[in-house]
Amino acid sequence: VEQIKDEIERRVRSGLLRAGDRLPPARGLATELGVHRGTVAAAYSELAGEGVLASHVGRGTFVTEEAAQILPAAAPEGGAFRWRDHFGGFEPPAQRSEIEAALARDRDPGIISFVRNIPDEALFPTEAFRKSLNDVLREQGGPLLSYAAPEGHDVFLTFVREYLAQERGVTMGEDQLLIVNGSQQAMDLIARSFLRPGDTVLVEQPSYSGALDLFRAHGARLVTVPVDAGGVRVDEMESVLARERPKLLYVMPTFQNPTGSCLDPERRHEVVRLSARYEIPVIEDDFDGELYFDEAPPPPLKSIPGSEGVIYIGTPSKMLFPGLRVGWIAAEAPVVRRLSRVRRIADLSGSPLLQAGLARFAGTGALLRHMKRVRKAYGERMQRLLDGLSRDMPPGVTWTSPRGGLSVLVSLPEGQDSGELLRDGLEEGVLYTPGQMFYVNDGARHLRLSIGNVPTEQVGEGAKRLARVVRRGLGRGPRRNRTRNGLSLPTV
Amino acid sequence: VEQIKDEIERRVRSGLLRAGDRLPPARGLATELGVHRGTVAAAYSELAGEGVLASHVGRGTFVTEEAAQILPAAAPEGGAFRWRDHFGGFEPPAQRSEIEAALARDRDPGIISFVRNIPDEALFPTEAFRKSLNDVLREQGGPLLSYAAPEGHDVFLTFVREYLAQERGVTMGEDQLLIVNGSQQAMDLIARSFLRPGDTVLVEQPSYSGALDLFRAHGARLVTVPVDAGGVRVDEMESVLARERPKLLYVMPTFQNPTGSCLDPERRHEVVRLSARYEIPVIEDDFDGELYFDEAPPPPLKSIPGSEGVIYIGTPSKMLFPGLRVGWIAAEAPVVRRLSRVRRIADLSGSPLLQAGLARFAGTGALLRHMKRVRKAYGERMQRLLDGLSRDMPPGVTWTSPRGGLSVLVSLPEGQDSGELLRDGLEEGVLYTPGQMFYVNDGARHLRLSIGNVPTEQVGEGAKRLARVVRRGLGRGPRRNRTRNGLSLPTV
Repeated sequence: VEQIKDEIERRVRSGLLRAGDRLPPARGLATELGVHRGTVAAAYSELAGEGVLASHVGRGTFVTEEAAQILPAAAPEGGAFRWRDHFGGFEPPAQRSEIEAALARDRDPGIISFVRNIPDEALFPTEAFRKSLNDVLREQGGPLLSYAAPEGHDVFLTFVREYLAQERGVTMGEDQLLIVNGSQQAMDLIARSFLRPGDTVLVEQPSYSGALDLFRAHGARLVTVPVDAGGVRVDEMESVLARERPKLLYVMPTFQNPTGSCLDPERRHEVVRLSARYEIPVIEDDFDGELYFDEAPPPPLKSIPGSEGVIYIGTPSKMLFPGLRVGWIAAEAPVVRRLSRVRRIADLSGSPLLQAGLARFAGTGALLRHMKRVRKAYGERMQRLLDGLSRDMPPGVTWTSPRGGLSVLVSLPEGQDSGELLRDGLEEGVLYTPGQMFYVNDGARHLRLSIGNVPTEQVGEGAKRLARVVRRGLGRGPRRNRTRNGLSLPTV
Repeated sequence: VEQIKDEIERRVRSGLLRAGDRLPPARGLATELGVHRGTVAAAYSELAGEGVLASHVGRGTFVTEEAAQILPAAAPEGGAFRWRDHFGGFEPPAQRSEIEAALARDRDPGIISFVRNIPDEALFPTEAFRKSLNDVLREQGGPLLSYAAPEGHDVFLTFVREYLAQERGVTMGEDQLLIVNGSQQAMDLIARSFLRPGDTVLVEQPSYSGALDLFRAHGARLVTVPVDAGGVRVDEMESVLARERPKLLYVMPTFQNPTGSCLDPERRHEVVRLSARYEIPVIEDDFDGELYFDEAPPPPLKSIPGSEGVIYIGTPSKMLFPGLRVGWIAAEAPVVRRLSRVRRIADLSGSPLLQAGLARFAGTGALLRHMKRVRKAYGERMQRLLDGLSRDMPPGVTWTSPRGGLSVLVSLPEGQDSGELLRDGLEEGVLYTPGQMFYVNDGARHLRLSIGNVPTEQVGEGAKRLARVVRRGLGRGPRRNRTRNGLSLPTV
């Protein structure tokens, strides 16, 4: 509706439509634009309400005499350029204004927001990092403000190599690592290097919304395998691989987003076996594998023998700070070479300064100390959330019980729609991310809670409010199911 | 040759080719692979030299008994994955190993290198920037280590807006700016938003190699308009626009790379008129407009009334530091909205910390002081280079005389090939960037000299050495002309 209104307004402003001009019949224009007739009719009707158009039964819709005053010819935004006609190629996801508007209120006072899947700023080791950054810049100066190699800053590459080997059991050679601007760029480089429009990508369901948006923007067709408490259902995976022959498989084996599930060791081996057997590259997104609460999770896929097909992505965004925009890819040398060449086109290289600062910070021991601290803090917070849900949620509502990470998936009874309940959430003072963000098909009855951004002492109250919201929905009874795609919400 | 060798070696290692197996005739394989027959023959011959293959006249080429020992089955790099079969979609530029190998030696001791088009580290105001960065991090802490808005950090956006208005005469609204990771990402986001494979892009000839590589990687067809001392030849532009209807026009009006030319004010107005008349978006790459030696250059295209079609790119990479990986786009709001959505897919956002540090640095007055200092320094250095060329170059050699920026284009007599002369350059101890990097068609007789990385006191000696290299080439006489495309060299 907005697009049609915009276009008509533009034509009035530019003089292409003048007072008395008749508009095409709604039905005809709808066919031409490939939209529903009601959409055009709604646009006409809204413009009539604004005094720009007038409808005369049996004669059609006309531009009014007042239109030129209401929409003066003063240079409109974007001038004479019809920018929409110029855009092409890469298709970013469409916007979902209602949901975005609700989620944008997640910093309103009085709102307890489980929306943003980010670590707690109150836990940031800001002072220690500031000192490290300041020290490296004082000691090394100029070279840290010059171009880095596209593969990354030497010292940081060495740190990542040692870190992966010691902390994650992933042993990589020097030509098997690439430093990038965060996990999102890692995935974009991989998608650009492997995907053509129409290619199939196999994803977990539910999965990270930012990845789903990314694959869709690259024109990929998504096929899904469900996730349960033991991670992605590898028993269902082989038949899908054999049938669909996807170009890529995207998994988060450890503390999956949004479920928090951790893939069983046996299933990890099976994913590696399937990748080798069907020769399908696997993207292993290990964004929060370090954030375990008690026991360390099983080592990543990339540590398993025979995992040549695995392209591993790591990031300090969840364990440390998201704003450094640093991440790493560990993969076979031919993959790293290709990604590095694509990266040179994309943005040449990252900042050596932030990489050097981070390597220094880790070198002082501050990173491992910080990890101990946040594991404990998030573990406590998660326990409070799970306790609160157990105490307050009505029967029929279920949720996951993660042993690490920041997020929990809550599932409402059939027929409930968490997107529609956002309005109730705003009234009760609690926000969450609706499940449709994470599902390729029909996620309406699910929702994600992320604890990183909620102070520990507010978690219980947040669960209480959420329970009230759920009760409101249950009181209204089931709605018809909805299937939704192509969302674009804050992807964190 | 290397690719064919790799593939044969891979097959031997994987057991697909065994002792005694016959290889396809060179001619047949060449046709199948779409390469020249001589390429296949060379690969066979090199493998024969290594003992892997043996040729028997009249019978063909065979795998030797020794091949399995020379190429053991031990897991080859990348394991069983034939990665090349998996890559698709975005096609990064091919590598040019000989030229890259020569240019990679530009930091060898004894080499005076005019290759890298970067500012001088010795002039970096590192201490002042360190203090600014340290101050903002101490004062603001956590939020600078969290996600920034995809449009950029608030304070930095305000700085860029004021800077553009005051220093460049470009007045933009709040929704008309986007902060990105350097100029390269700006161009990549624009290409992703506007180009489909096969689209035409109009570029200056010569032009920035990183941009040519980028447009080619996006599958664009490049058409050219020549550059002279007054900038791009707008008198030739209109007929090309009318005939080719390009999707984008890419220009560097101020201190163009590699010529250093500055576009005349009348031509600037004409470019804006043509953009509006043909409704063709213009990318204005203003990467070094601030680096003038005496008089300020004419204001950017984006400051001219009617320049709605102009998408302006700015960066601190040349005036300040290249390693911050920060840049900005000033464009109409619909363009900024689109680019911002594509950027969210590409890498979410940039680092708020570096943006805040840079805004603080500028706010202390250090940026304008620094600009005064480097304008003087580079002006002196450029004068030494131009004096040296006048003094030492043999007749028939010409060069541009930039009044700003860091680079000069030198043109040798017809029939000379600056790429081939790189070997002489290494012997004489001087390096430059061959012209073929900057030309869509036939740039062999040109070369670029960049002064940013050469200490002032070495510039004269560098010119002297270059003159000796040129004399060597002239002594050998003209070579047949070559047309080359698709290079991938360090794009700075």
